[in-house]
Amino acid sequence: MSLVPPVLAGDRLALARLLTQLENETPEGLQDLSALYGHTGQAHRVGITGAPGTGKSALVNRLVQELRSKTDSPQIAIVAVDPSSPFSGGAILGDRIRMRDLSGDPGVFIRSMANRGALGGLARTSSNLVAALDAAGFGIVFIETVGSGQAEVDIAGAAHTVVVLDAPGMGDTIQALKAGILEIADLIVVNKSDLPGAKTTLAALRATLELGPAARNKDRESNWTPPLLLTSATTGEGIPELASAIGEHRRFLEHSGEWLVRERERVDQEVGRLLRERLAESFLKAQPDGFYEEALRKVVAREASPGAVVEQLIEGAVGAG
Amino acid sequence: MSLVPPVLAGDRLALARLLTQLENETPEGLQDLSALYGHTGQAHRVGITGAPGTGKSALVNRLVQELRSKTDSPQIAIVAVDPSSPFSGGAILGDRIRMRDLSGDPGVFIRSMANRGALGGLARTSSNLVAALDAAGFGIVFIETVGSGQAEVDIAGAAHTVVVLDAPGMGDTIQALKAGILEIADLIVVNKSDLPGAKTTLAALRATLELGPAARNKDRESNWTPPLLLTSATTGEGIPELASAIGEHRRFLEHSGEWLVRERERVDQEVGRLLRERLAESFLKAQPDGFYEEALRKVVAREASPGAVVEQLIEGAVGAG
Repeated sequence: MSLVPPVLAGDRLALARLLTQLENETPEGLQDLSALYGHTGQAHRVGITGAPGTGKSALVNRLVQELRSKTDSPQIAIVAVDPSSPFSGGAILGDRIRMRDLSGDPGVFIRSMANRGALGGLARTSSNLVAALDAAGFGIVFIETVGSGQAEVDIAGAAHTVVVLDAPGMGDTIQALKAGILEIADLIVVNKSDLPGAKTTLAALRATLELGPAARNKDRESNWTPPLLLTSATTGEGIPELASAIGEHRRFLEHSGEWLVRERERVDQEVGRLLRERLAESFLKAQPDGFYEEALRKVVAREASPGAVVEQLIEGAVGAG
Repeated sequence: MSLVPPVLAGDRLALARLLTQLENETPEGLQDLSALYGHTGQAHRVGITGAPGTGKSALVNRLVQELRSKTDSPQIAIVAVDPSSPFSGGAILGDRIRMRDLSGDPGVFIRSMANRGALGGLARTSSNLVAALDAAGFGIVFIETVGSGQAEVDIAGAAHTVVVLDAPGMGDTIQALKAGILEIADLIVVNKSDLPGAKTTLAALRATLELGPAARNKDRESNWTPPLLLTSATTGEGIPELASAIGEHRRFLEHSGEWLVRERERVDQEVGRLLRERLAESFLKAQPDGFYEEALRKVVAREASPGAVVEQLIEGAVGAG
């Protein structure tokens, strides 16, 4: 039975079921998502990324409370891709404590990615979950990722607005820079401002940024300069300012045309990824029995390089067709 | 001019040039690698992975010194994929100090992956670099990655032997567990044994492991139980034991037939990845002008889902063929 009508009607149980189907990549789930696709495009996708220990989850928690305290607040969803997040790891760690602040609010929906090793990979699965939440009517979808792996940086980078977190005592900020995290930042936040060293971290980040504006915004010659904010999930300092800055960035994106540019980039990446997977799948299905295995054997025996056997496989298929 | 003869003759300058070509994926570089492929298969690929702060680079440094101090030591190469590694980040941070211990040894070759955002992606590029080093005669190739992103875990997982590092004060070890790092471990090391809390970390890891053996070894029903080692790059504690354990694991792999099983898995992954990329490339080249762009436009306009336009693209091509 299709989950499309109940999901569109706001049925949260149906939504949760659909998300599970999308994590497992069931044909029904993917078909439902296709049917829902026309309803997407409204949600503001906000990536929150930073090294473990920068306090991403606690900050998201406070931020969502702040946003929801306004009378005109949209419904908000949180997708946690970070394996160290209490949003995703809480069930095991028993530290879902911070999440409790949000669990009483029917306008908030939290989903963790349980299957990191899922069939379709992290990027495909998270993208599908976010699309489903978008169609289900969430005005803001936060995507929490740990900012150290390329896959995670890519996921955050596919958002409309990317918030990069740092915190005092995390070691040299050059690390974040090298990993390409600062380059995708639209907003830069030094969290844990109640800890000693926060101002030093802020100054170090500012110095780094003065060497050149963040690359994503530089390439576009846009007029957006990523603001630097100090926040504390503990004291609440800077949380209203962060909430405002996220809204401002959305307005900037819409007025400058950048919203559409980013949508197009994200779609290009996603369609490209799907195309590669589908082509390989049908190619392998059309191969005679044992052909692929024979190619692998040759490489293991060092009779041919991986590149050479791939060319042989492709030429063989062209010749046979 | 082909770099194959000088690389095989042990010319380090030619090797460095080839590695740069492979990072940039030049046709000459890839052709040379194909020609060198028959000379690969001797190197013991050892992945070293762990969260930032576990002291991977300092440990590799001490470990390589230990291995090289033996009269029968092979030549050793280090590929640093970790952006926080002084092996790769040192030039900026000015902390290549630790590296100096190795730089006087002509039997050691250190290479960092400069281009994280390279054309072919991290996995393809690092795999090519390791193959070139293998062909160049290095008996051991260490691959240092940060153990938090899926891409990095995959790179380490493609090694023959995976060493997973933890350290006291890194927070709950459950984080490493959730990220799938412990599951790929052949050797588990608690580094910084000179710091307080090392024994507690060791006990916590042991308790975690007793819940079930590491998955990689469990699936295979192999007789290898990942040993737990305490090391300190500062005092040198446990370094000879770690060097021995790496050698023991190689002997275990060879005697059990597991070496070939892992080679085959790695080749399967690599050929699969290349095949997907090549198929998409030639597919897109064969599309009429503007077809792909029109597909993207439809998705951005929410006229069709990414999955639907991919099916349309593929069916169109089949119909046209």
